Amino acid sequence: MNGAESLVRTLVAAGVDVCFANPGTSEMHFVAALDDNPDMRCVLGLFEGVVTGAADGYARMAERPAATLLHLGPGLGNGLANLHNARRARSPMVNVVGEHATYHRQYDAPLTADVEGVARPMSHWVRTSRFAAEVARDGAEAVRAAMAPPGQIATLILPADTAWNPAPEGAAAPLPIPAPAPVQTDAVAAAAAALRSGEPAVLLMNGAALRKDNLARAGRIAAATGARLYSDTFAARVERGAGIVPVARLPYFAEQVEEALAGVRHMILVGTRPPVSFFAYPGKPSDLVPPGCEVHSLLSAEGDFAGALEALAEAVGAPAQGETAVSQRPQPARDGALDPQSIAQAIGAWMPEGAIVVDEAATSGFGLPAATAGCPPHDWLGLTGGSIGQGLPAAVGAAVACPDRKVLSLEADGSGMYTVQALWTMVREQLDVTVVIFSNRKYAILQVEFMRVGAHNPGPKAMSMLDLSNPELNWVQIAQGMGMEASRASTVAEFNTQIESALRHRGPRLIEAVI
Amino acid sequence: MNGAESLVRTLVAAGVDVCFANPGTSEMHFVAALDDNPDMRCVLGLFEGVVTGAADGYARMAERPAATLLHLGPGLGNGLANLHNARRARSPMVNVVGEHATYHRQYDAPLTADVEGVARPMSHWVRTSRFAAEVARDGAEAVRAAMAPPGQIATLILPADTAWNPAPEGAAAPLPIPAPAPVQTDAVAAAAAALRSGEPAVLLMNGAALRKDNLARAGRIAAATGARLYSDTFAARVERGAGIVPVARLPYFAEQVEEALAGVRHMILVGTRPPVSFFAYPGKPSDLVPPGCEVHSLLSAEGDFAGALEALAEAVGAPAQGETAVSQRPQPARDGALDPQSIAQAIGAWMPEGAIVVDEAATSGFGLPAATAGCPPHDWLGLTGGSIGQGLPAAVGAAVACPDRKVLSLEADGSGMYTVQALWTMVREQLDVTVVIFSNRKYAILQVEFMRVGAHNPGPKAMSMLDLSNPELNWVQIAQGMGMEASRASTVAEFNTQIESALRHRGPRLIEAVI
Repeated sequence: MNGAESLVRTLVAAGVDVCFANPGTSEMHFVAALDDNPDMRCVLGLFEGVVTGAADGYARMAERPAATLLHLGPGLGNGLANLHNARRARSPMVNVVGEHATYHRQYDAPLTADVEGVARPMSHWVRTSRFAAEVARDGAEAVRAAMAPPGQIATLILPADTAWNPAPEGAAAPLPIPAPAPVQTDAVAAAAAALRSGEPAVLLMNGAALRKDNLARAGRIAAATGARLYSDTFAARVERGAGIVPVARLPYFAEQVEEALAGVRHMILVGTRPPVSFFAYPGKPSDLVPPGCEVHSLLSAEGDFAGALEALAEAVGAPAQGETAVSQRPQPARDGALDPQSIAQAIGAWMPEGAIVVDEAATSGFGLPAATAGCPPHDWLGLTGGSIGQGLPAAVGAAVACPDRKVLSLEADGSGMYTVQALWTMVREQLDVTVVIFSNRKYAILQVEFMRVGAHNPGPKAMSMLDLSNPELNWVQIAQGMGMEASRASTVAEFNTQIESALRHRGPRLIEAVI
Repeated sequence: MNGAESLVRTLVAAGVDVCFANPGTSEMHFVAALDDNPDMRCVLGLFEGVVTGAADGYARMAERPAATLLHLGPGLGNGLANLHNARRARSPMVNVVGEHATYHRQYDAPLTADVEGVARPMSHWVRTSRFAAEVARDGAEAVRAAMAPPGQIATLILPADTAWNPAPEGAAAPLPIPAPAPVQTDAVAAAAAALRSGEPAVLLMNGAALRKDNLARAGRIAAATGARLYSDTFAARVERGAGIVPVARLPYFAEQVEEALAGVRHMILVGTRPPVSFFAYPGKPSDLVPPGCEVHSLLSAEGDFAGALEALAEAVGAPAQGETAVSQRPQPARDGALDPQSIAQAIGAWMPEGAIVVDEAATSGFGLPAATAGCPPHDWLGLTGGSIGQGLPAAVGAAVACPDRKVLSLEADGSGMYTVQALWTMVREQLDVTVVIFSNRKYAILQVEFMRVGAHNPGPKAMSMLDLSNPELNWVQIAQGMGMEASRASTVAEFNTQIESALRHRGPRLIEAVI
């Protein structure tokens, strides 16, 4: 047995049995070890941003880490942006990054780079294995680090000789996973006192607070106290739909957040931090806590969500049940020119129970939450780190994690192009993903933001930096070029027909919605 | 005038007048400043790897830096792999990376990351501007750092408030560029003595040694001493073709290098380091200097190439001229199934004078150097850092730098998919690039390397990690989806017709060569 084999066995023993991979020469022994182990599934991505984004989507749905396999510093570099999103999502992940053999580094061969330096900004835990005999232990510790509540990015750098040299037989035993931080009774008491004051209050929630059972607890608190429930603008995973306690999403733009929170006197943070502006704007505040509002942290992201919310519900004398979303679907629009609203209505009309929505629709997606609020229960996965190019890869990972559920990948055209290679993996793995491309041929958000930051009216050169219409992208051809069934919809009628069919049938399918 | 405007003026004053860009909200003031300045050309890329790779290709041909515009830590992360290649090429480059406003960082908004930490592994010089008033000076210093011989990656991080706050009127004056390190007379003497010994000798060259005038000097040295001329396997830019002194390229695989250098007693390093194996392999050496060979460094990469080679030529009493490549073109193959050799012959038969070859053909490209050795003078750009996904972006940059020359982008299918978005920029800018995709539907190099590293016979799971045939990529559709004229060639006759036409006419064009 060599180091690579001991690592793969250790990962499988710890429940890490999917590896999203884009390997190179320095990873060939790890690839061979994957080959030997029937319990490890391998999924190839044609670009590393697909690999790390898929591992993120997988972790959000599977609630355990996937492994990634990446090639040296530059390969890891290609995966960094989606590691950033995963880090912000607090997704557990174990990156295995190949590296030159320990004795080979000194020669500074062309692919040599500071791999640890590349890893560190987007990883919670980084280690370079020193010896083949230690690789299994390093792997077990990487999984433990990844599983530390609520989830961490663990990056294990594997020099080629630690992969190919002999190692002790067998896997390292899985290590105990750290427990969440215990409930802080004083924090519960302070939050309860604030909520009992009768003054306007909100619960601002993220992480596991947005799962069905914890939303039920939050709903009971709301019913008892009149507090409103908000989630951060971008959340890793929200369970929502008919029968689930609904949570409003903080708007994207700072002035909308200010409007939403105006007059609030108590903000209870449930696994998150005080709201801030996504970007800074000249002369506008960054801190979006309303004036005169007291902030109380019920628990940090590392805490015991169920325990803290249950304790708070008891402390405020909450009823057995709060208000849940009513089952209702919008009527699809009849016909006419396609726009984001008619797309949202159609999705609301036909989205199946158990759907996993991967939302990177950007400006085109503002109508989606309302249109789907009364749909059967589903999950909503957001762009946690704000780095575009996450949606298509995350859809890959969610579909691998949940093969019996429909994944609906709602994608802005500008964002989709960053990691367009993900379409190929959807086809290769025959994943049940419906991709909708909102094809408006521009970086629409930047056309808005250009004004908002107080830059003058954009001239033709600036506009050309925000415009994707020359040449026009033909998403049907791009998708078909990667073997994907694809069609274009320019009218409501076309879109309705295509989305209904895509949502009713299994398999990878792309719809370019021209808006 | 604000900080961003002062920076753009400073860049233009220092001769940096092309900006490859993929901006976001934090860069909107810089975009506005680009808009205001008619002397700065902006080229949009749909992914940051396109942006940094284009700046690399531009710098290799223009011999001065382009600016890049990137969005925060994740955007810079997406550009890292091609920064790695550019760093290895010693291409001058000025990256402008937007960052949150200085006062906004403390709030840890979703896109916040350690931008300097992301920059450092692939940059020679990193700075974060502190005040708008200092941005112009920082920009001037960034250009000076980029231009330090032979070229450096300078990364200037621009917090949004340093871009939008008022700054002193005007540009900062360009700073003097450091001179190359002076000729070391003792190194010249030692190299001359070694060459005069009559023992087998090679000059191993890189950097500016591979430009026509310095190759002429090296050719005179070879003529006087019998030394053989080699370049490193991957060089940023080689001038070659009829009338130019030819230089052999060190082979890729270690055992081929050993064979090429067997018996050599003196190795004169001309702006490079001793040859090493690209990767380590179990039981095989990393250091490829032959046993008993003395290594003499004539100059480092930072040195005065023309001065040192001229001094060495004089010291060995070199004649006025060495042997140059004879003008000759191969006959194109007649017909039959297409393979890398018949493609190489066709390219050799029709490649126009002044062509810029961007070579990322990987295993399919082994026959290209020989088939083109006697073509009219042309430039050859190699994959200096070994991180694939460099070719298509570098072709964009080379074409922007040299609008009157044909760029021939020779691209492996696996490599091409990493930064496929570059095709869109070729169309948008109507660049004169002919792309040839060597479509073998596999990571062929990895199928070779899997054996070479001593892993056992690959099973189906390992093979699936090295195989791109399920689904097959249709490059014609992918290219057409980005507005590019494209065609497929499966036979020699088809390829000959298509490549001849593409090389004779201007404009972006892709040929998928199915091999």
